[in-house]
Amino acid sequence: MSVGVWLVGARGSVATTVVTGAAAVRAGLVPPLGCVTEMPDFAAAGLPGLDELVFGGHDVASTPLTKRAAELSHAGVIPARLLEAVRDELEAADEEIRPGLVAGFGPQCTDAARLIADLTSFRVRLGLAGVVVVNVSSTEPPFPARACHADLASLERAMAAPGQVLPPSSLYAYAALQAGCGYVDFTPSTGARLPALDELARARGVPYAGSDAKTGETLVKTALAPMFAARALAVRSWSGTNLLGGGDGATLADPDAGRSKKVSKDRAVSALLGDGVDGQTHIDYVPPMGEWKTAWDHVLFDGFLGVRMTMQFTWQGCDSALAAPLVLDLARLTARAHRAGESGPLPALAFFFKDPIGTDEHRLTVQYEQLRRWANELP
Amino acid sequence: MSVGVWLVGARGSVATTVVTGAAAVRAGLVPPLGCVTEMPDFAAAGLPGLDELVFGGHDVASTPLTKRAAELSHAGVIPARLLEAVRDELEAADEEIRPGLVAGFGPQCTDAARLIADLTSFRVRLGLAGVVVVNVSSTEPPFPARACHADLASLERAMAAPGQVLPPSSLYAYAALQAGCGYVDFTPSTGARLPALDELARARGVPYAGSDAKTGETLVKTALAPMFAARALAVRSWSGTNLLGGGDGATLADPDAGRSKKVSKDRAVSALLGDGVDGQTHIDYVPPMGEWKTAWDHVLFDGFLGVRMTMQFTWQGCDSALAAPLVLDLARLTARAHRAGESGPLPALAFFFKDPIGTDEHRLTVQYEQLRRWANELP
Amino acid sequence: MSVGVWLVGARGSVATTVVTGAAAVRAGLVPPLGCVTEMPDFAAAGLPGLDELVFGGHDVASTPLTKRAAELSHAGVIPARLLEAVRDELEAADEEIRPGLVAGFGPQCTDAARLIADLTSFRVRLGLAGVVVVNVSSTEPPFPARACHADLASLERAMAAPGQVLPPSSLYAYAALQAGCGYVDFTPSTGARLPALDELARARGVPYAGSDAKTGETLVKTALAPMFAARALAVRSWSGTNLLGGGDGATLADPDAGRSKKVSKDRAVSALLGDGVDGQTHIDYVPPMGEWKTAWDHVLFDGFLGVRMTMQFTWQGCDSALAAPLVLDLARLTARAHRAGESGPLPALAFFFKDPIGTDEHRLTVQYEQLRRWANELP
Amino acid sequence: MSVGVWLVGARGSVATTVVTGAAAVRAGLVPPLGCVTEMPDFAAAGLPGLDELVFGGHDVASTPLTKRAAELSHAGVIPARLLEAVRDELEAADEEIRPGLVAGFGPQCTDAARLIADLTSFRVRLGLAGVVVVNVSSTEPPFPARACHADLASLERAMAAPGQVLPPSSLYAYAALQAGCGYVDFTPSTGARLPALDELARARGVPYAGSDAKTGETLVKTALAPMFAARALAVRSWSGTNLLGGGDGATLADPDAGRSKKVSKDRAVSALLGDGVDGQTHIDYVPPMGEWKTAWDHVLFDGFLGVRMTMQFTWQGCDSALAAPLVLDLARLTARAHRAGESGPLPALAFFFKDPIGTDEHRLTVQYEQLRRWANELP
Repeated sequence: MSVGVWLVGARGSVATTVVTGAAAVRAGLVPPLGCVTEMPDFAAAGLPGLDELVFGGHDVASTPLTKRAAELSHAGVIPARLLEAVRDELEAADEEIRPGLVAGFGPQCTDAARLIADLTSFRVRLGLAGVVVVNVSSTEPPFPARACHADLASLERAMAAPGQVLPPSSLYAYAALQAGCGYVDFTPSTGARLPALDELARARGVPYAGSDAKTGETLVKTALAPMFAARALAVRSWSGTNLLGGGDGATLADPDAGRSKKVSKDRAVSALLGDGVDGQTHIDYVPPMGEWKTAWDHVLFDGFLGVRMTMQFTWQGCDSALAAPLVLDLARLTARAHRAGESGPLPALAFFFKDPIGTDEHRLTVQYEQLRRWANELP
Repeated sequence: MSVGVWLVGARGSVATTVVTGAAAVRAGLVPPLGCVTEMPDFAAAGLPGLDELVFGGHDVASTPLTKRAAELSHAGVIPARLLEAVRDELEAADEEIRPGLVAGFGPQCTDAARLIADLTSFRVRLGLAGVVVVNVSSTEPPFPARACHADLASLERAMAAPGQVLPPSSLYAYAALQAGCGYVDFTPSTGARLPALDELARARGVPYAGSDAKTGETLVKTALAPMFAARALAVRSWSGTNLLGGGDGATLADPDAGRSKKVSKDRAVSALLGDGVDGQTHIDYVPPMGEWKTAWDHVLFDGFLGVRMTMQFTWQGCDSALAAPLVLDLARLTARAHRAGESGPLPALAFFFKDPIGTDEHRLTVQYEQLRRWANELP
Repeated sequence: MSVGVWLVGARGSVATTVVTGAAAVRAGLVPPLGCVTEMPDFAAAGLPGLDELVFGGHDVASTPLTKRAAELSHAGVIPARLLEAVRDELEAADEEIRPGLVAGFGPQCTDAARLIADLTSFRVRLGLAGVVVVNVSSTEPPFPARACHADLASLERAMAAPGQVLPPSSLYAYAALQAGCGYVDFTPSTGARLPALDELARARGVPYAGSDAKTGETLVKTALAPMFAARALAVRSWSGTNLLGGGDGATLADPDAGRSKKVSKDRAVSALLGDGVDGQTHIDYVPPMGEWKTAWDHVLFDGFLGVRMTMQFTWQGCDSALAAPLVLDLARLTARAHRAGESGPLPALAFFFKDPIGTDEHRLTVQYEQLRRWANELP
Repeated sequence: MSVGVWLVGARGSVATTVVTGAAAVRAGLVPPLGCVTEMPDFAAAGLPGLDELVFGGHDVASTPLTKRAAELSHAGVIPARLLEAVRDELEAADEEIRPGLVAGFGPQCTDAARLIADLTSFRVRLGLAGVVVVNVSSTEPPFPARACHADLASLERAMAAPGQVLPPSSLYAYAALQAGCGYVDFTPSTGARLPALDELARARGVPYAGSDAKTGETLVKTALAPMFAARALAVRSWSGTNLLGGGDGATLADPDAGRSKKVSKDRAVSALLGDGVDGQTHIDYVPPMGEWKTAWDHVLFDGFLGVRMTMQFTWQGCDSALAAPLVLDLARLTARAHRAGESGPLPALAFFFKDPIGTDEHRLTVQYEQLRRWANELP
């Protein structure tokens, strides 16, 4: 029986790469590189197969996925030879994309109702065993806290009145949870991280996970920082510069949205190395970088007798190619968890996130072991 | 009751930094940076205190430790302000350094007898609870296998005849084990890694560990390679260049000794990532680097849809400052294991080594967790 | 006959290194590394000898130079063995340091008069052939343009009234020029770069030069950018991150002062590669870096058939050690130019500056050739 | 009137990119990036136009150029959209490719006669104003010196007897010069660098140039090393590692051929910085790198007061895309020099080479100025 993957931002680079890649792997045209859940460690975990995933989503844009795929091919993300082979799957997904939220003046409960209807229709029409909503849209600026976020009853009262009480990511999360769908925050946006939405998830018996997938600099940080900690080396500063060209680069160039990201990026270092670490993190929008990103990190540390040493690294990656397989992993794992009866946050998915919900574990290798064990022990 | 730390290569940069640093930490002049066993995780493990360690050793050189410490201060390894404060401890250790092995033509059992006598005298005269021998001398070229290495009886017969049947590191290991001392191979030399010596260790009830401490490039590799593996990213090549200026640089410039090191360095990558990884590792002797070393590594990997990406890192460290605290850790842990009745190889010490004896686990974080658990569960 | 070098910011790291280094080179204790004018190319240029330089200056701080030198020794800038050897010279310079400007409410002509008197006294008392004032104080925030900056008469009228019409660097420049001293802007501060001060320099027959000495990232940029230009490679972006720990790092962390610096840093790239180059430059204050700085630059460029390529570099330098010899070079060359009768800006000194006054030539090698020829052809 | 460009190694990656790129630029499909002679500085130099170049060559391989171009498109060197547009030009060049030299046992004068006939036929049939032969084939191992290399008469006597007295590159050079064609060594192979061939070039009134085009690490070195020299900074070591995947990578993995390359690479540093610079240069064949190469260089230098500092750079380029436009530049400049009556070596082309014939000038910017002046002053 099939499982639905509903992508918020369904016409973006990540979503297009998700649909293209799933089709290409399914057809045996490329190996499942980057897909954690395709490794032998997860073969017995009872996850839905890649060939059981069906795609749909919301987006405010209307460019057909086939056109987006051609653009990504030109940018070096999707091999040209795959375009023809995955055309049918892209068109099928295109059919299941509904208009995204546009900020309006009416009450948000009206918007929510429409989103819920879209999700329900998707599930029912296609006879899906379940649906997982994954937010892969642009990063939002931080949204100010409101009293009504504290509990579900207050929230729903506020949503019934005109005005924006939830940022879009949280409205999508609300709709997903209400519709009985798992929800995953792939971005640092607020999403499901509000007491009222946690209450809703538990009440509806659906799991959620997040936030902000680690695909580059932070991924490396969470692999390296435990090394310094385990060797009793005192990290004095950790400085980073990220050069991004793609859509998210433009978004993060906005200081407000960039702030969301930096906060989320910094959490790992302080969790792993304590608060005494100096240094800033920059996110620069460099349009000629296109779909590519480069991060340079500089670490200053003291060893025995106070001897000062340094480590630097450069990570040169393709954002969509790093992100897309994780979307598949997260959808499969969340669908499996839902089937197993888990509800509320899924801390076992910390392995995927810069700012994992429900846990303070940031050591990458430990996160992997926890993920592996959890997935294989699900009832 | 005190524990002896017997350093083979007792006048080298590492050994001098060990004695200086132990004294400086003990006196509260510097924090115990780089000392794994001084972290809270090991506070309850019953390890001998830093103030219970007494130093001695073998060396073919005769430069006083105070002079070597002054040289290391000039080279930026030892802060000048410490030299006066640790003078007494350096002179005390100097008193306990005996002449190292010089290759001769007589039977090796004669040399062994002298080494055993040195070790026994050290333990008895100073009333030590135990002694751990740590080999921190220069890396040897690979030593050809001999039939007599297969069992202790054959080995001892061969040692009774003139000629060199064991490389120096193994003769030191033989003497250590015969004298009832734990033995640690800090270098990639053969040391205790012979069936005959393993038999001896078990027969005498003493533990041993090795080999080739990871203090730079390989340390980082074992932190990073698990990241690629856990994310299903296919590493296509891993190339490395190491620039070394110190004594070991000169030794490793010799292609034979360099070979020992490269073999040991490469083991981690193939153990962690499989055999399909291309790339070479260079070790260059660059005298102006002095006590410092720089490693540059370049990793080429494929992700989703076969997209090619790269990671590079540069590690700029001071070799002696990285190595010395690990010598203290290894001596304390081996002494503790000996007291707990462990004999033979100590795979739980894999965390410290490029080529750990008795285990194939190379993931740094997993190694740390195993070390922590083992140390805290020793009887 | 001796020449005076008057340092504005005479107790700073750069100034202390200047005085220490000049004494150490003079005494033959260290070779004149980093001193451009000590190379054979300048041996016949008739420059004042290093042993003919006499130091003095202004500073608002009062820490003795011997103390500052000890601090710099601790930070790894000045070898400890030199401290005793240069004590006399440091104390002699200390005697010639006068209180720096403190912003007040009176007319600036009063301050100027005091500065002029200090400079004149220095020259007369010590019987100097000439004096060059070099501004090595902290970078100022940009100072807003005023109508009175347009000509000397207007400026002097404005200076007679209460209020600050000139930033400190320009007031020092005014005093220097009025006192018949050459003036060099080592920083990006306004200094002599005002029409009124240019008028004064020409009227008094004194030369001046600036601004913002290139000692790291920009130095490398002006060596590398001509390579891309000469090879017809199209640079798409040039991004840079500078990590600084010292006094200037703290100053530049202030967004206003940082702005002065970035503007000056960016001039070279646009002059050499045109205006279509994307990318930002960051200056981060990272206190644990101490006297050291690290710059990472990332260059994205297109070659034949539009193939996208990248270059990165890391520069790890000691700010004061890079700057100090240039102060000596600039003082000697400016004194020589003054003696040769040059007045107004000295474009031939562009080799030393990020934002050279009086020329648009930024190609380092061309600048060097121009400097060499000019110096050797001075009458 | 047209000019012939005869490529030795005409089916290799560089040659294929040359023919493709010339056609694409001519057709206005891509801008002439990387083409030095298309810059305004050379507009008035009277060079043959890109649309006046006609291609032919020798090769031992027989793969059609259209197939090679498709392979290079797959490897990311040639944009896919150009393949169809340049098909005719590739096929036309294909028609003019003759079988390359295969080592035999007969006298080399026989081989030479055939090569000369090929060149003459090319010129006469196509009515070319002149032909320039450019050697872009694989690097040869060093060829031992022979007495007969000393003068033309001896050489021709030796060539009349069976056996190999010249390496292939020199036999091609001999044929080119005899046929009255300019000759350019794009590789470090011996080529025209023999007294006998220099004599021939002068006798026939034809120019030649070489050797070993600088397209990456050495290009950067010759831009950077003058910076250290001009600033009186003492470079202590310069270490480099080159990772290459393409055809030349495989060739250079052979220690003999690699030796040719390293010698040529090292010449620039010692010419620019003197002989006291430590450090090695590695060339690693890393097949997964494909057409791409990465160089990492590490420079250790001392500044004022002996303070030790470092610079590192990484260059990530596409070999063929870097090399191809230089082939066009060299052919046009050599044809122009030939027309202007120049014969023998062309030191003004040093700008293009690691090991320039006829000059010791290695400073890139100075080389560029010399090239520009020379080209514009040719009669």
